[in-house]
Amino acid sequence: MSNDAFVPHPDRLLPADPAVREIARELYELQKDQPIVSPHGHVDPRLLLDDEPWSDPTALFITPDHYVNRLMHSRGVDLADLGVGQGPLDEAASRTAWRLLAEHWHAYAGTPSRYWIEHVFHEVFGLETVLNPRTADAMYDEIAEKLTRPEFRPRALFEQFGITVLATTDDPVDDLAPHTALAADETFTGRVIPTFRPDKYLEPAREDFVALTDALGEAAGVDVSSYDGYHQAMRTRRLYFRDHGAVSSDHAHMDPGTQRLADEDARRLYADARAGRIGADDAVALRRHMLGDQARLAAEDGLVMTIHPAVLRNHSEEIFEKFGPDVGFDIPVAVDYVHHVRPMLNDVGLDPNFRTVLFTIDETVLSREIAPLAGVYPSVYAGAPWWFIDAPDAILRYRRAVSETLGYTRTSGFIDDTRAFCSIPARHDMSRRLDASHLAGLVAEHRLRIEDARELVTTLPDQQPREVFRLGAAAKENR
Amino acid sequence: MSNDAFVPHPDRLLPADPAVREIARELYELQKDQPIVSPHGHVDPRLLLDDEPWSDPTALFITPDHYVNRLMHSRGVDLADLGVGQGPLDEAASRTAWRLLAEHWHAYAGTPSRYWIEHVFHEVFGLETVLNPRTADAMYDEIAEKLTRPEFRPRALFEQFGITVLATTDDPVDDLAPHTALAADETFTGRVIPTFRPDKYLEPAREDFVALTDALGEAAGVDVSSYDGYHQAMRTRRLYFRDHGAVSSDHAHMDPGTQRLADEDARRLYADARAGRIGADDAVALRRHMLGDQARLAAEDGLVMTIHPAVLRNHSEEIFEKFGPDVGFDIPVAVDYVHHVRPMLNDVGLDPNFRTVLFTIDETVLSREIAPLAGVYPSVYAGAPWWFIDAPDAILRYRRAVSETLGYTRTSGFIDDTRAFCSIPARHDMSRRLDASHLAGLVAEHRLRIEDARELVTTLPDQQPREVFRLGAAAKENR
Amino acid sequence: MSNDAFVPHPDRLLPADPAVREIARELYELQKDQPIVSPHGHVDPRLLLDDEPWSDPTALFITPDHYVNRLMHSRGVDLADLGVGQGPLDEAASRTAWRLLAEHWHAYAGTPSRYWIEHVFHEVFGLETVLNPRTADAMYDEIAEKLTRPEFRPRALFEQFGITVLATTDDPVDDLAPHTALAADETFTGRVIPTFRPDKYLEPAREDFVALTDALGEAAGVDVSSYDGYHQAMRTRRLYFRDHGAVSSDHAHMDPGTQRLADEDARRLYADARAGRIGADDAVALRRHMLGDQARLAAEDGLVMTIHPAVLRNHSEEIFEKFGPDVGFDIPVAVDYVHHVRPMLNDVGLDPNFRTVLFTIDETVLSREIAPLAGVYPSVYAGAPWWFIDAPDAILRYRRAVSETLGYTRTSGFIDDTRAFCSIPARHDMSRRLDASHLAGLVAEHRLRIEDARELVTTLPDQQPREVFRLGAAAKENR
Repeated sequence: MSNDAFVPHPDRLLPADPAVREIARELYELQKDQPIVSPHGHVDPRLLLDDEPWSDPTALFITPDHYVNRLMHSRGVDLADLGVGQGPLDEAASRTAWRLLAEHWHAYAGTPSRYWIEHVFHEVFGLETVLNPRTADAMYDEIAEKLTRPEFRPRALFEQFGITVLATTDDPVDDLAPHTALAADETFTGRVIPTFRPDKYLEPAREDFVALTDALGEAAGVDVSSYDGYHQAMRTRRLYFRDHGAVSSDHAHMDPGTQRLADEDARRLYADARAGRIGADDAVALRRHMLGDQARLAAEDGLVMTIHPAVLRNHSEEIFEKFGPDVGFDIPVAVDYVHHVRPMLNDVGLDPNFRTVLFTIDETVLSREIAPLAGVYPSVYAGAPWWFIDAPDAILRYRRAVSETLGYTRTSGFIDDTRAFCSIPARHDMSRRLDASHLAGLVAEHRLRIEDARELVTTLPDQQPREVFRLGAAAKENR
Repeated sequence: MSNDAFVPHPDRLLPADPAVREIARELYELQKDQPIVSPHGHVDPRLLLDDEPWSDPTALFITPDHYVNRLMHSRGVDLADLGVGQGPLDEAASRTAWRLLAEHWHAYAGTPSRYWIEHVFHEVFGLETVLNPRTADAMYDEIAEKLTRPEFRPRALFEQFGITVLATTDDPVDDLAPHTALAADETFTGRVIPTFRPDKYLEPAREDFVALTDALGEAAGVDVSSYDGYHQAMRTRRLYFRDHGAVSSDHAHMDPGTQRLADEDARRLYADARAGRIGADDAVALRRHMLGDQARLAAEDGLVMTIHPAVLRNHSEEIFEKFGPDVGFDIPVAVDYVHHVRPMLNDVGLDPNFRTVLFTIDETVLSREIAPLAGVYPSVYAGAPWWFIDAPDAILRYRRAVSETLGYTRTSGFIDDTRAFCSIPARHDMSRRLDASHLAGLVAEHRLRIEDARELVTTLPDQQPREVFRLGAAAKENR
Repeated sequence: MSNDAFVPHPDRLLPADPAVREIARELYELQKDQPIVSPHGHVDPRLLLDDEPWSDPTALFITPDHYVNRLMHSRGVDLADLGVGQGPLDEAASRTAWRLLAEHWHAYAGTPSRYWIEHVFHEVFGLETVLNPRTADAMYDEIAEKLTRPEFRPRALFEQFGITVLATTDDPVDDLAPHTALAADETFTGRVIPTFRPDKYLEPAREDFVALTDALGEAAGVDVSSYDGYHQAMRTRRLYFRDHGAVSSDHAHMDPGTQRLADEDARRLYADARAGRIGADDAVALRRHMLGDQARLAAEDGLVMTIHPAVLRNHSEEIFEKFGPDVGFDIPVAVDYVHHVRPMLNDVGLDPNFRTVLFTIDETVLSREIAPLAGVYPSVYAGAPWWFIDAPDAILRYRRAVSETLGYTRTSGFIDDTRAFCSIPARHDMSRRLDASHLAGLVAEHRLRIEDARELVTTLPDQQPREVFRLGAAAKENR
């Protein structure tokens, strides 16, 4: 059994060269214990409100994690066998799914999923073996047992992880009751804030567009039969979110277009959409106008606008029909930021109240478009690597792609963007190790003074995202 | 003369850092003597059938190698002086071409062509000098002399190189007689298999489209006056190839489009093409439908579909008129895989009998499109770097671009894609050194356990391409 | 005060690994004292003709440098406070701007602007402190005092920097009087040559197109009411430039299109443009035809054609209205070279008198398009990294992207492309350090012989740009 022993190395992700590693270690030490600020993610707030234990290891590590599922699917595993698209698994099915993961675990070598999960196995659950068919059952049992203990409940882990701010992602018609309840709960000291995510209300070609806008109008108490009413309903709901702690809105369309229509054209196309007769091109044109209007509202209410464009969702129709969205079949495409955000930036890009963070999976725009934009517009920040490129080599490529144009102060700070609650500390820790490695390399090549590197690493994990996302030093956090 | 001495260093391509190099050496040792599996390339099967000696060094190293020719051409050398586009050179002209190469050899510093050729000079021909005007004649003479020896004939080298599978590239109307003869030849134990390459039969705008399709129909014994007949002829010829050992078909168009037409539209456009009256846009539409139909046939017959798109062939019309195709004027362009292969993958992408390998020279799609597709569809593999990016830095970029999304098991294994027979072992050896270097870096940074790295390197050279290309353990190889 | 001490490290930019650094040091030593050849830049020739001292540190380092201004602007500083878009600053305003730079200097950590400026601070002005609010005034005073000395006047620095050739950028209607005067000045031994930059005369949709072409016709003494006259005027002015020492023309449009029109269509569209009634698409078509005609003229007169495409100028309309062009709001976009330059290369690409250098900020075309084109066409060279990618990591990416396809002899040599006179030696020195680092890495990995690396570094700084730009060994330089 001795060859099954494994704990993550304390120097993991630090540079191999001994002298550079020494510098990196120092820089990592300066930030590793800083609190976690997570201004963009997908954890359900009820997880923390209810504070129920996780039912089993598969429900924690496999079923909800499309990073994990998709690679097994590519190797021939049926998503149904992993619990995707169905209710909770019983004990036998859960264990079977776990054994599948163990059987395929060698194929995750070199992936961030394996890195994150192994971090959690050891740092959170204290495991000291590698996952494989020999160790699978024992590891399952140990995790399952620990999940029953109070110190492994969500709130206990939230504190243990050192999270101080956690943003969720929420529907504009959501009443945010879990956020209200959490904020009112004197026994919970964390700051859990909503994020305004209006995507589907900006897609006029959707079959359910009328139902969606009706619901929006109802939530806002506004008649949405006209575009002006729709716009007012958006304004109302954004303010509702802001009043409930939101600091940002999030936007994910096929392109980041913000080209404005003449007001009368917007009104006419909106009426067409409500009447179910809008064409595909008009729907795109109206969506871009609507996104431009979100920017105008952002300049009013100060919510930071995060943009995550250019992913073709649900590439396989058959999988979508069987298992629904978010199961690994969302594939990035090329994006043009320069032309698409120009109308928006000419409209509000110099307004001190407006702020936007541009994310991409198309790495080509990092040095070509995002860094030049964020390096001149005071309202624009370069978003951290996201989704497929939220991994060590890609994160290092990001730093090397944008820093020479805009330094470090015009970047968003790390964004974990995760549904997997336990991976939050693993992801932030990875980011800190990589920043330490990147900066240590610059110091070792005498491109950066060690004093400047020390200053940077102490500001990047906490202060940087607080500034970018206007998080301030909230009352609740400081209790 | 001592400064002309040169042999490739045994540690070439391994990392400079002593500790990392030590790991890389161990990983390289584990794979360096594994057999060579070459499932995609352009060697003529008659080379091995006839087993004739090469006539001279220029015919072996210069005239047929557009990698070598193009760089000399860019430096002002006339392709005619290198033997391109003409019959065999006489001794004087051959030696003159060789001296030209020697004169320009310093300009190949840092290129894979120089790396491969220097590998062959030393490892195959035992030379211990660098090529330059001083050494040119002596090196020419030594190679020329050795080429007359039995141990330098193609079959002897095939065995010496440790090649166990070699795929050629063949026209669908080819009777594959050389393959049949080689398979029947008891004195030759190699496995040389054809590849179905139907490109020109899928380009309805070609002036010779009628002649081509007529020839296809004749080879298949099928009336191709209708699209249905054309499709049946394709089915027939694919099966013929499969019966003669083929495991894959290869496809290289300007884009990897697979958008289907309605059946009646396909029939009508095919009739237009046969009548010589198809427009440019319709020809592209029909070609994409045809490629989708190749995928349907692949799901029937199990041939692995390799796609090599997005190269603008014969960029210079004058050079094409003088020297024909494949002389270095094929230039890559940007490609969109996500939209183009979607119809195909929605059609057969979840069919266990269908399989495709996506290659690219546009490196931007590696992390953005190919890795996400291959990391979720069980039928999709990420092709190894090809053509202009089949070089050390580009190969390392490839590993770093795709591995974080899909690990190592969803990649094609190394593809030499070469016409230059002697470069086969040089290219495979380069790939093995680079995989060892890449993995050693991960081990040194504690991102990969040494045990996992060892396992990977023992499977990547041989087992991985065997699995991807359904090569099994063929009878002939195991004799 | 001791923590304010700072001088750039002598080994800056060299690799961290001790053994590789040793090789890099040797390679750097071989080139560091070579003369500076600057075949493309934006220094005003009157700077050297008048030889007036700079008025103050802000006028030297801040106001004219959009690299510096844009990052401060992104951090909330008003461009007006930096002197942009107005006359000379008085002493108080100049010092205030300088203090702003000091206050924001930490945000430049890791940028080439900081690297270049710190090089100049120390190597040119002998400063030994880092810029920050504590040191700002003392550094300002010391620079201001030195600027009054004779040895800090432009001509003295020109000699001290070791510049032997400096190209300026000039309007086609310019009489080049400063160049004539400089060439006639026996007391100045430098070679300062003009560059023909006709961009605005190739944009038929400009409102001032008639005025521009009229001025062109007047300068040439040619009637430009027809396209033929326009073309003849261009020919005349190019020859005028050549006769005044120019070796190249420079071209920067949204795309590098060179598609030809039928002659009668070009004449008609030109007439439309002169009549102020050309449409947007026609204007683009005519511009591409005009660029193709510049290539034809280049094949006649031998001026090397440098192409710098695909930058969306003046992204912010408000900033453009307030401050004019060139203040940091020019943002790169994606480019397609392969199709766009094909008509030009089919026209004159094999003509030995034609030569073009292709530059890009879209890094994706380096390995995909530019290297393959420059690696086969004798008229094409791969331009050095430019603008946003003229920085250490981007320069290393460039070498790794193009060298494997075309080696080193098909590259342009370093181009500083700067308006900031004092940054010229800093930029060339950076380039030499990075070439040394890049090549040392190849040597350490046994991918390049040390002998070849030594030969390369001795040719890259001086001989390479002289050959590419047909600079020869001019009489004046050799006095």
